[in-house]
Amino acid sequence: MASRWTVGVDFGGTNIKLGLVNGQGRVAHRCVLSAKAMSRPSQFVEGIGEAIESLARRAGTRTSHLRGVGVGAPGSVETRRGVVRSLVNVPGWRDVPLRRWLERRLRCRCAVDNDANLCALGEWRFGAGRGARALVGVTLGTGVGGGLVLGGRLYQGAAGAAGEIGHMVIAPRGRRCACGRRGCLEAYVGTAAILAMGARAMRRGAEPLRTLVREAGGRLTPALISEAARRGDAEARTMWAEVGCSLGIGLANVVNLLNPDRIVIGGGVANAWPFFAPALMRTVRREPMDIPAQAVRIVRAQLGDRAGILGAAMLVWDEEGARGERRGAGA
Amino acid sequence: MASRWTVGVDFGGTNIKLGLVNGQGRVAHRCVLSAKAMSRPSQFVEGIGEAIESLARRAGTRTSHLRGVGVGAPGSVETRRGVVRSLVNVPGWRDVPLRRWLERRLRCRCAVDNDANLCALGEWRFGAGRGARALVGVTLGTGVGGGLVLGGRLYQGAAGAAGEIGHMVIAPRGRRCACGRRGCLEAYVGTAAILAMGARAMRRGAEPLRTLVREAGGRLTPALISEAARRGDAEARTMWAEVGCSLGIGLANVVNLLNPDRIVIGGGVANAWPFFAPALMRTVRREPMDIPAQAVRIVRAQLGDRAGILGAAMLVWDEEGARGERRGAGA
Repeated sequence: MASRWTVGVDFGGTNIKLGLVNGQGRVAHRCVLSAKAMSRPSQFVEGIGEAIESLARRAGTRTSHLRGVGVGAPGSVETRRGVVRSLVNVPGWRDVPLRRWLERRLRCRCAVDNDANLCALGEWRFGAGRGARALVGVTLGTGVGGGLVLGGRLYQGAAGAAGEIGHMVIAPRGRRCACGRRGCLEAYVGTAAILAMGARAMRRGAEPLRTLVREAGGRLTPALISEAARRGDAEARTMWAEVGCSLGIGLANVVNLLNPDRIVIGGGVANAWPFFAPALMRTVRREPMDIPAQAVRIVRAQLGDRAGILGAAMLVWDEEGARGERRGAGA
Repeated sequence: MASRWTVGVDFGGTNIKLGLVNGQGRVAHRCVLSAKAMSRPSQFVEGIGEAIESLARRAGTRTSHLRGVGVGAPGSVETRRGVVRSLVNVPGWRDVPLRRWLERRLRCRCAVDNDANLCALGEWRFGAGRGARALVGVTLGTGVGGGLVLGGRLYQGAAGAAGEIGHMVIAPRGRRCACGRRGCLEAYVGTAAILAMGARAMRRGAEPLRTLVREAGGRLTPALISEAARRGDAEARTMWAEVGCSLGIGLANVVNLLNPDRIVIGGGVANAWPFFAPALMRTVRREPMDIPAQAVRIVRAQLGDRAGILGAAMLVWDEEGARGERRGAGA
């Protein structure tokens, strides 16, 4: 007998978070695994396989009775077949048929998509994106990810690769990006860019920031730059305003193209929201055509690290719906 | 008794083109009106009202028996209510409830949308976009318009304003655009930009172009710059390559965001396709992430000025479908 439980898996750079989700979107049981121990695909399948078995037992069921398992992966996913083409920063993953492997291991429906897509889906259904007709989700972190939920459905594009906001070019001859090209949004608002800008701010004599970094053992982090801004560090504040402005240039283009009614911004770097949001809003309102700029609300994500788990569970539900529709259309 | 005929109206800057379209997308009868004589909304409604009556008579029916009338307008349209918010270059149009006025005049269903949206819809159904799952239509002319057909439906955005590709910023501190901002795509590939670039090319000594312009009575047009390129004018060729490159920068962003499988490029300026397409392709293939760039085919529009008429007719059919679905969902 199929149970009402779905498992959502959020495969992050450091941790893999799993949650057992009920039909109302409540995360009943959770567990966290270290991503390092399972950097190879076979280790990953075995590792999360065991964890999902254990979660199912805690809910008094077994994996073959789950409604399904959804996985958000930090990279490029061919969603139709559930194949992970490549992962950002994990070299061993090339064209891994993760869906098939997991289904064989767990004996239940599995689905795989890009992690930023699933965060957008989670926020749309349960978080800051509720009620939006056209939602753009942005995940700010090491990478800058994006996900589109249009008309109540995750929009995946022709090859499951839609939403690559991080590699939108905002300055044709601009900063070099990790992807090899110039002027990508990620080269201005990704963690590496923020750390480089923070280091420059320190050299220019950002005193609260220098003290904070010294106290933290010398390691600069976006959180410390955020804390310095909170303590009134002018250099740190200027830096976050620049980040907001760059993000605004990219999002203004998205607003003109897609006319969303909501943009939800999450990810670790979104904790600096009070310091980059004003410049972001001003840039978006100034740049696009009037009507789309008036139509959009830009808000901070609400679900924190539950977004990825809930979105992954929703992917399973959405695919059920799509199968049902196909059956209906074929009948 | 309702007939199988739909009327599509393509409201352009110079001409208003009307066509009587059958259920298979054949344009059976056409007529063309001068846009100048009906720059005021009341004149427009009366003028096309008479023309549609005459078209209906030619098909042996009357307007109240038409399946509907679709109108593509060159400006900002609130599609849900069919209100034209404003038109590009026609000052008298402000929040005109065109749908209601036309329905009262013609006693049949009417629908209104942006002209570039409808060209995209027409090409998707009957032209170069057939079979595409995610289509981006680009119309190159005085304005640079765009339309998105995603999953077989026109995507209109939250406020009916999606697809504004022309005001995507491709260079934050770039050329001044007619809209008042800097660096919009239109400031690089719109007709005004092309004429300015052509004039510069002539000053630099583009001999075939100079001769062509002299023979044409001194008036430079995009068609002449295109003809000069065909005759081997190096300056004209360089100029078109620059246009292709700028268009490619903008479309690379669209490709990264939406992962379309087809981009269809139409409008008058698209006649210079052989001279701008190679640079456009190279730029798109170079700029975006690999997968979306591999997934997209960039092609020239096929329907010419029938695209707008057919797309306007399809708008009527699409709205019938949407009403049917709403009824189905409510039942």
